[in-house]
Amino acid sequence: MQAKSYVQGEWVTGTGGKTVNNAVTGEPITRVSSDGIDFAGMLAYARDTVGPRLRALTFHQRALQLKELAKMLMADKERFYKLSVATGATRTDSWVDIDGGIGTLFTYSSKGRRELPNATFHLDGGPEPMSRHGSFIGQHIHTPLEGAAIHINAFNFPCWGMLEKFAANYLAGMPAIVKPATQTAFVTEEMVRAIVDSGLIEPGSLQLISGSVGDLLDHVTCQDVVTFTGSASTGRKLKQHPAIVANATRFTMEADSLNMLVLGADATPEQPEFDLAVKEVLREMTVKAGQKCTAIRRVIVPRAQQQAFIDALSAKLAKVVVGHPEAEGVTMGALASRDQVAEVRSRIADLQAAGARIVHGDPEQCDVTGAPDAGAFVAPVLLAADEALDKPDLHTIEAFGPVATVVPYDSTDEAVTLARMGAGSLVGSIVTHDQDFARALVLGCAPFHGRLLVLDRDCAKESTGHGSPLPMLVHGGPGRAGGGEELGGVRAVFHYMQRSALQGAPDMLSAVLEHWLPGSERRTSDVHPFRKHFDELEIGDTVLTEAREITLEDIDHFAHFTGDKFYAHMDDEAARANPFFDGRVAHGYYIVSLAAGLFVEPNPGPVLANYGIDNLRFMTPSYPGDRLKVALTCKDKTKRENTDYGEVRWDACVTNQDDAVVAQYDVLTMVATTAWQPQDESTATA
Amino acid sequence: MQAKSYVQGEWVTGTGGKTVNNAVTGEPITRVSSDGIDFAGMLAYARDTVGPRLRALTFHQRALQLKELAKMLMADKERFYKLSVATGATRTDSWVDIDGGIGTLFTYSSKGRRELPNATFHLDGGPEPMSRHGSFIGQHIHTPLEGAAIHINAFNFPCWGMLEKFAANYLAGMPAIVKPATQTAFVTEEMVRAIVDSGLIEPGSLQLISGSVGDLLDHVTCQDVVTFTGSASTGRKLKQHPAIVANATRFTMEADSLNMLVLGADATPEQPEFDLAVKEVLREMTVKAGQKCTAIRRVIVPRAQQQAFIDALSAKLAKVVVGHPEAEGVTMGALASRDQVAEVRSRIADLQAAGARIVHGDPEQCDVTGAPDAGAFVAPVLLAADEALDKPDLHTIEAFGPVATVVPYDSTDEAVTLARMGAGSLVGSIVTHDQDFARALVLGCAPFHGRLLVLDRDCAKESTGHGSPLPMLVHGGPGRAGGGEELGGVRAVFHYMQRSALQGAPDMLSAVLEHWLPGSERRTSDVHPFRKHFDELEIGDTVLTEAREITLEDIDHFAHFTGDKFYAHMDDEAARANPFFDGRVAHGYYIVSLAAGLFVEPNPGPVLANYGIDNLRFMTPSYPGDRLKVALTCKDKTKRENTDYGEVRWDACVTNQDDAVVAQYDVLTMVATTAWQPQDESTATA
Repeated sequence: MQAKSYVQGEWVTGTGGKTVNNAVTGEPITRVSSDGIDFAGMLAYARDTVGPRLRALTFHQRALQLKELAKMLMADKERFYKLSVATGATRTDSWVDIDGGIGTLFTYSSKGRRELPNATFHLDGGPEPMSRHGSFIGQHIHTPLEGAAIHINAFNFPCWGMLEKFAANYLAGMPAIVKPATQTAFVTEEMVRAIVDSGLIEPGSLQLISGSVGDLLDHVTCQDVVTFTGSASTGRKLKQHPAIVANATRFTMEADSLNMLVLGADATPEQPEFDLAVKEVLREMTVKAGQKCTAIRRVIVPRAQQQAFIDALSAKLAKVVVGHPEAEGVTMGALASRDQVAEVRSRIADLQAAGARIVHGDPEQCDVTGAPDAGAFVAPVLLAADEALDKPDLHTIEAFGPVATVVPYDSTDEAVTLARMGAGSLVGSIVTHDQDFARALVLGCAPFHGRLLVLDRDCAKESTGHGSPLPMLVHGGPGRAGGGEELGGVRAVFHYMQRSALQGAPDMLSAVLEHWLPGSERRTSDVHPFRKHFDELEIGDTVLTEAREITLEDIDHFAHFTGDKFYAHMDDEAARANPFFDGRVAHGYYIVSLAAGLFVEPNPGPVLANYGIDNLRFMTPSYPGDRLKVALTCKDKTKRENTDYGEVRWDACVTNQDDAVVAQYDVLTMVATTAWQPQDESTATA
Repeated sequence: MQAKSYVQGEWVTGTGGKTVNNAVTGEPITRVSSDGIDFAGMLAYARDTVGPRLRALTFHQRALQLKELAKMLMADKERFYKLSVATGATRTDSWVDIDGGIGTLFTYSSKGRRELPNATFHLDGGPEPMSRHGSFIGQHIHTPLEGAAIHINAFNFPCWGMLEKFAANYLAGMPAIVKPATQTAFVTEEMVRAIVDSGLIEPGSLQLISGSVGDLLDHVTCQDVVTFTGSASTGRKLKQHPAIVANATRFTMEADSLNMLVLGADATPEQPEFDLAVKEVLREMTVKAGQKCTAIRRVIVPRAQQQAFIDALSAKLAKVVVGHPEAEGVTMGALASRDQVAEVRSRIADLQAAGARIVHGDPEQCDVTGAPDAGAFVAPVLLAADEALDKPDLHTIEAFGPVATVVPYDSTDEAVTLARMGAGSLVGSIVTHDQDFARALVLGCAPFHGRLLVLDRDCAKESTGHGSPLPMLVHGGPGRAGGGEELGGVRAVFHYMQRSALQGAPDMLSAVLEHWLPGSERRTSDVHPFRKHFDELEIGDTVLTEAREITLEDIDHFAHFTGDKFYAHMDDEAARANPFFDGRVAHGYYIVSLAAGLFVEPNPGPVLANYGIDNLRFMTPSYPGDRLKVALTCKDKTKRENTDYGEVRWDACVTNQDDAVVAQYDVLTMVATTAWQPQDESTATA
């Protein structure tokens, strides 16, 4: 067996290379080598052949492709589960990797369509006024970088590790080159094969390197992005690669960290939080046999509860069954390799030298169920220390396996200090039902953490747990955790795009961006814009209405009809005592209702519904006698893929007889395309 | 004269060090040395003494301090202008540095109060639903990093260079350590002195190093931020400093780049854009004697216009008067030092070797007005090449002085290619009145640029120009420009904060964040929340209203009263043909008006005004017979500093008889504190 790479649209077989053994049986599985690959050619292919095709699609089109891809992988997932057994993973372990990875594609598909425009670039923030007369304005945009996203991944999540990054780079419009860790690359290879064979995404947008990256990084430019997940030492080396430094190539690193769980002083053994914390640590020690960059390494508990916590956790650890992932009753699988076993034993010894003692388990001793001695098995080992404030090494030595250390604290401040001694972590958990304790820990630890879980009885049932990065939340952390950031919904998409500030005349920028900006022409014609279909409407199309006078009778009428008799509308004297008003004012709700009465074209036509309003601000009060008029301008259009309508955002500006702005807001409507046909009334449904 | 540093609240004099000469006269001004400074102590002071005090203030409190600081500096600015003459700067040059820097403080003060909460941390984005039953949610926050912002700055902007970075780090809640370039540190020192003496900001929040940074960087942690502005070679070295790499310390770099200006094919000499482009290049070559990281180095023009452009620009360059900044008629000052003169001459020779020829000026020859030969003067030099596509060095060699090269293009695509050959720039200008050309250039160049100016006749009068970074727009660029990002309004503030994802139960996270999150308790009491003053209101305070029925008569009434007779409200058959409705529906505007009628407490009280609505979405249509009710919950409070009221944001949720959500939005009100007194009617004003 010889691992293959997927290069410039072809499967390529390396020669020779490193042998990878089955983590459970110790038998050889495959040989991995990337010898002979044209790495510069892979980059050029991504840049010149795939990138332009990918960038021609909109965010929504790419998002829909991701959805189809996710559906295909979900339907075909058993092949990945089957293969993953050889990495030492139980079914539960693989669920995190396989279903977790596919779930990320679903989330990005959905978020991409809800939170990004159906366009090839993205407006970042609102327009920036920059001139007195409004002839010069600014607007930020995000455009896709025009290189490749190079992902160098860790061995523990061969599927999720690829998909969680690919989801974001693909949505952004960048092709990827993925280099999985050699030890588990055979699983990644199988998934890339499934993706390539499906034909569901742009051909060539995912290339695979099984083996070393060769001279790939020598060829990066300012348009590429390099991400690294794995050991801090390797990551630091890559970060300083001459081409990465010379070209200021974006480099994101996610390294293991000494993640903590803090138990609140309120969480005595009688409280449900005590048991929740024990279970959380148990899970983090045993899922993936503790080989997670997010796993809990430091358990920080009230001194009074330390022994009780050790006892409760030890009792649970004693029931863990280590062995062949497919054997009956097994609850924890193997490490990825025998090398890892040796590594974990060595780090446990370091922790002992740093001041911890083993309170449960034996690093040299492991009862194995249903697998030969050649497997990469190690039993869970719990350590403890009586003091940790004066033992900095306890906060820096990481055993990347089923290992954690329980340390005591004497005050809330001390708990915060101990938590921060990890010097930057991916995630921390605070297990408490005490809101004050939670607030002190969250605000004290946030600058040192990428993610914080506050676990209590109220959320325990639905909590996704300490160790699970979620696609909608950022993943990464400062300092020891590498300083990178991934995921976090569309935040991650922007890691693959360049933010640029545009400056110019409103008309010019509106034309360039196909988005109406303040100060641009409001273009009127004989045709009311509500008579135009989605595809006929143009940015800037405007209706300027007649004026309508506000009367005291109307204000009274509106108040009695709606029930809104707030004193500022009803009582002249009370209104005058208010710092904002000179007497009875019209209701804001009346102003926007009246405005709709002025701008709406009432007959059936392409406008289907008003589905909302954004950023409504009342700027100038309206008094009886004021005459209000509206300018309503087509500001932005977002076609909904696979439907016959789209969202149209209108700029609504209500002004008075002095041209002072009374109200400013966006009106959101759904507008049919010319392809749309009214429904037959008899078949209409909700 | 000996330069001083400001260290741990004390002015410290270095011994010996490098002599700095007056750029105009060549006479010695001062000696600069940081020998003997306790650099580790500076960091510890920032971290342990100043940081906690600074973080105890809110964004708004810090913003107001910046405003007072800006006012003081503006009133006292002549002392900086006077001193800056010795750097070779004309009054115009110094305006960019001094008024520009102070203006940045004003902008950050204003943006900080408008766009950040009056709190010590910031919610990033909205809540993330993460569970079926809503008992587990996510929310991102930004908290200030707890170290120091270390700014290593360039010699060309001794004031602006400090203030544009300090504005953001101070607003974020981080103290700064500023190290200006030795050559112009005496100007920075004067400004730091003015700031320290004013007592307007937190004592010790701005420390100054005049001279080398010594071993400062050896002591950084994951909580510090290092920014660098200057030469790419120095920046790359610092980026790889062992402590910065080991601690994943944030490092931002802004280096000079080969910024371009592209003239559109439409901009023939008869068009106003031609002349605008000539003037823009002239200004960029002569302001600060071309010593700006944003200056135009490459002028990309239609081949047909190249000679005309060179002729027009040369005619203007011939009128430039170089000399003593204070001498009558002088329009361009000196370079920062004689070393810079030698450097610029050497780079011009390199450009000639790379294929350019001099078409105006002589690097060795400069008529100087009102200053001795010892000054650092050089005349403007314009170069040109007949081809630039095959001459990559023309796009990489930078003469950091009054120097630019004019190159031709033959097609729009070629113009884009040439522009991108800079391999990453801070800024590019596109001078055209052709929207298609502008769109092609903007979208083709954006991934390679931090800022793009589209200059035409419509914006020219108010344009702030190619070379001016603006506080509300991002400054920085990919690749050669360093890959960093500064400014951009509050975007820069977050460079000094850590983003963390929080997860937990809605009640717990609401309490921790003092912000009502979906799923949290809606707490009712006998007191209507509109009867509570700002300081009495608590997050979660709620009014649950009675239900009110929608009738066909009400819909008719509302339609006739407001004039909004959109068919979906009026014509049952037409409404049914709409894909979203089952028959005549109530107006969205009626629903929110009716909702106000239900939740408003009408009598005079602490609620002063409804000033807006955010994120209104209509989720379920309302038909005659539906009974609607509202839950209105206090979601967020922002006290307005120096007033007796604050902004209260309410979560409004309108539901029907089936508890389906009909409309969801935020209501924004201004609410008085208990200190507030109603105005005397007789003195009320608009």
